[in-house]
Amino acid sequence: MNKDFMLKAVYLAKKAEETDDVPVGAIVVKDGEIIGEGYNKREADGDPTAHAEIVAIRQAAETLGSWRLDGCELYVTLEPCPMCTGAIINSRIETLVFGAYDKKAGSASNESVTNLFNLPYNHIPTVYGGICEKECAELLTEFFKKRRV
Amino acid sequence: MNKDFMLKAVYLAKKAEETDDVPVGAIVVKDGEIIGEGYNKREADGDPTAHAEIVAIRQAAETLGSWRLDGCELYVTLEPCPMCTGAIINSRIETLVFGAYDKKAGSASNESVTNLFNLPYNHIPTVYGGICEKECAELLTEFFKKRRV
Repeated sequence: MNKDFMLKAVYLAKKAEETDDVPVGAIVVKDGEIIGEGYNKREADGDPTAHAEIVAIRQAAETLGSWRLDGCELYVTLEPCPMCTGAIINSRIETLVFGAYDKKAGSASNESVTNLFNLPYNHIPTVYGGICEKECAELLTEFFKKRRV
Repeated sequence: MNKDFMLKAVYLAKKAEETDDVPVGAIVVKDGEIIGEGYNKREADGDPTAHAEIVAIRQAAETLGSWRLDGCELYVTLEPCPMCTGAIINSRIETLVFGAYDKKAGSASNESVTNLFNLPYNHIPTVYGGICEKECAELLTEFFKKRRV
C-alpha cells in the first residue's frame, strides 16, 4: 500500500467536477505500476455504471487482456457502493484501499450500510479504509458546498 | 411483467455459450419496448464487469441518453450478483424480473447469500423471482454438464 497512489486518485477525482460529476477517483496498480485509472463519469457519459472504480477496473482488464485482476490493488477516494464492491469481488482484486467512508451508500466496511466482504463470496480482498481520509472527504464536502450556493 | 421478455432473455443467454461464457441473458424494457439487451461477455471481452445485466443497462442508458432508467423493467435469466444488484439500484430500474435463483452468488432475494434490497439504499425496485425458472436454470445445468465431460 502506497499513499502516493491515493493522492493520484484524488487528482483524478477533481476531473469529474468538470462535468458536474461527484468527484471520485480510482486507480488500479499491479507490481507498482498503474494499469488502470478512472473517475466518475455518470453524468458525462450518461452511464449509471461509470463509477470511478468500474472505469479503472475495465481499463486494467484491457491492459492485462484478462478479466482476472489477480495481484492488483485498487485505490479509490470513496468507499465503494454495492455495484463497485461487487465488481471488486468479481475481478478478484487482491487489495482495496479507500479514502473517505460512505455511511449512506457504502458496502465495504462495518461503518456503513453493509459490508459485503463479511459474506461468503469468493475472492474477498484485504481492505484498508480511511487512507488519506481528510483529502478524500474534502473533495466531496467542497463539491456539495458549491452546489448548494 | 411479461414472460415473453424472459424467453427473449433465454434466447440471448445461449449466445454467451459461443465464447464459453456462462449463459446468462438480460433485457431492459420501457413502455413495452426493448431498449437494451445483453448477455454475459466476461470471457469474450475479458471484462469482469461484462455481466448480462451491465451490458443491457449500459445499452438502455445509451438508448435513453440518460443514466436514469426510471420506469424501466430488467429481465434477467439468473438472480443478479452484488455488482449487478448494485447497478440496478444505481440506475433506478423500477422492476426486476429474474429467472433462476443463485444461492451461491445472488444478492437479490432472501433465498440467497444476501438481499441488498432489504437494506436502506434509495431506489429499491419491485422484484419478481423464479419467473420461467425451469428454462433459465436448465441453461446453466446443461452448460456445466457439457464442461464436465
